[in-house]
Amino acid sequence: MIKTDILIIGAGPTGLFAVFEAGLLKLKCHLIDALPQPGGQCSEIYPKKPIYDIPGYPEVLAGDLVDNLMKQIEPFEPTFTLGERAETIEKLDDGTFIVTTNKGTKHHAPIVAIAGGLGSFEPRKPPIQNLANYEDKGVEYIIRDPEVYRDKKVVIAGGGDSALDWSIFLTDVASEVTLVHRRTEFRGALDSVEKVQELKNLGKINLITPAEITGIHGENHVSGVEVTKKGEAPFTLETDHFIPLFGLAPKLGPIGDWGLEIEKNAIKVDNTLDYQTNIPGIYAIGDVNTYPGKLKLILCGFHEATLMCQSAYQRIFPDKKYVMKYTTVSGIDGFDGTRKEAPKAVVKAIN
Amino acid sequence: MIKTDILIIGAGPTGLFAVFEAGLLKLKCHLIDALPQPGGQCSEIYPKKPIYDIPGYPEVLAGDLVDNLMKQIEPFEPTFTLGERAETIEKLDDGTFIVTTNKGTKHHAPIVAIAGGLGSFEPRKPPIQNLANYEDKGVEYIIRDPEVYRDKKVVIAGGGDSALDWSIFLTDVASEVTLVHRRTEFRGALDSVEKVQELKNLGKINLITPAEITGIHGENHVSGVEVTKKGEAPFTLETDHFIPLFGLAPKLGPIGDWGLEIEKNAIKVDNTLDYQTNIPGIYAIGDVNTYPGKLKLILCGFHEATLMCQSAYQRIFPDKKYVMKYTTVSGIDGFDGTRKEAPKAVVKAIN
Repeated sequence: MIKTDILIIGAGPTGLFAVFEAGLLKLKCHLIDALPQPGGQCSEIYPKKPIYDIPGYPEVLAGDLVDNLMKQIEPFEPTFTLGERAETIEKLDDGTFIVTTNKGTKHHAPIVAIAGGLGSFEPRKPPIQNLANYEDKGVEYIIRDPEVYRDKKVVIAGGGDSALDWSIFLTDVASEVTLVHRRTEFRGALDSVEKVQELKNLGKINLITPAEITGIHGENHVSGVEVTKKGEAPFTLETDHFIPLFGLAPKLGPIGDWGLEIEKNAIKVDNTLDYQTNIPGIYAIGDVNTYPGKLKLILCGFHEATLMCQSAYQRIFPDKKYVMKYTTVSGIDGFDGTRKEAPKAVVKAIN
Repeated sequence: MIKTDILIIGAGPTGLFAVFEAGLLKLKCHLIDALPQPGGQCSEIYPKKPIYDIPGYPEVLAGDLVDNLMKQIEPFEPTFTLGERAETIEKLDDGTFIVTTNKGTKHHAPIVAIAGGLGSFEPRKPPIQNLANYEDKGVEYIIRDPEVYRDKKVVIAGGGDSALDWSIFLTDVASEVTLVHRRTEFRGALDSVEKVQELKNLGKINLITPAEITGIHGENHVSGVEVTKKGEAPFTLETDHFIPLFGLAPKLGPIGDWGLEIEKNAIKVDNTLDYQTNIPGIYAIGDVNTYPGKLKLILCGFHEATLMCQSAYQRIFPDKKYVMKYTTVSGIDGFDGTRKEAPKAVVKAIN
């Protein structure tokens, strides 16, 4: 059982900054994230993209912002459960919580702060009637191990970077690669688009556009797909695998079943005070929450995380009076024994 | 008459960042500040001090934060009225406002955002009964022109950097420099303290400690002060000037008389939506405002400024539907014709 003061679900920028504000109050944090590394979307989806609206940064790459936040919170020694998804929550008689992940890891804390961003990212699925029947039986939405496709026939659907890049990659692995896209135009890095054109000309990629996969055949496993070219009759194409790569879409996931008040796929919080949810002791901060006038911006998550930590402190220590100190005046005392502070004036007698 | 969309009173970090968020909405801003340069306290009081709680900055000097904010808002061409204090406000029949400074400069805008920080900084005054009678008649709280003291006798009171540094400086200007402090210990930069010790040893600074000035004499101008050394009887010291340097204290100032709801020297705002005050069209953001759970932190001001701008937009354009765009996706279009954006994927047909 992992024990902490504030259990943060989601290790994106908002969750990470909460560690800092909690640290100033001497509260320890543990973070759970379904992704294998901290940073949320910033690390997973657009680490090399610039962000222009972080206050004080005319421009910062999303990945660099995460690196800076990790450095900022380092003195407060956050701990992580990564690559696991928070699945269930249980409220104990003393008002504390136990959160269990999909892999069974248990976490115990008096405060839970959900900083889940837009949720877990799940693949977008094409509207094919019997699609679900073939999941993991020849239909895969994410390529985890390319060797699965060694000497097999594969059909990839999609028109973005993932579809382009995996089509290119699998020409060296699979016995036959077909790329199906509903338009003739592809959207991706220039060299990927050009490479696919070249492989198509060489006959290494079988390109079918504008077309869609409209059905799947096969007994216990995919044996073929139904391809419908625009304005033509469907035909069947033999294949061992069908890989739709239509991107990832955020889903609130299991947190949606925790008894929290949900509105428009987000968790309703009390913005008049501390971003607490309808369950006392559970807060929601950053893109995952909603309230009147809510903006899904990183800088708003920073503010929400800060007010949440103050409220959490008062909940954990109802009898202590908290006096806010400015970091510029008081410095930062890390849990690791480090101390950062502004140079002080000397006090010296003149005789 | 200066015309703008959002008139921001106070050019500290919160006021500056408001320019950026307004700019994303194509709204122009003009800022008024009593100080001669933008940056508020960060520039005026502690430009060389590190701040540790700006999200994404493990450490940043206050002056550098201001420089970065100025760079961030540059594309949105903010204009400034500096060195003037917003004095009066008038609401016109059409709901817009005219704000006039102490120097008579008039500004006209549909939205006023008060980002006044802790207020204007005014000198702390010692509790001497007839002190006010001598203001500008030998009593000065701020040294504007040292030449005023050429060949005069001056008495400086205080124990910090200002008292130390001006005592040192004036030994080359005044005919006689006396430094009075209620303790024997001084608080300042090490070399200042050592320099005063040296000048005292040379007889160039007349040091009286621990002592206080307890009275002022003189007809139409200061001619002497009453000095009381701890545990001793007061004595009179002839002087032409008495300069109490006890630091600056923030005062809300004339804004306090604008009919805004005030609580604990701060302006009450509606934190449930948009940080608007009791007067529609006037907002208060950053350290100058108060609401339940308020924290006087720069990062909170950034959030408040952002929500304020959204609300201001809707007030100015009640019929337009605003769709928020992410800077990472849409880039930044400066009013100066500049454009910043993330590298885009190409869209290209494959034949």
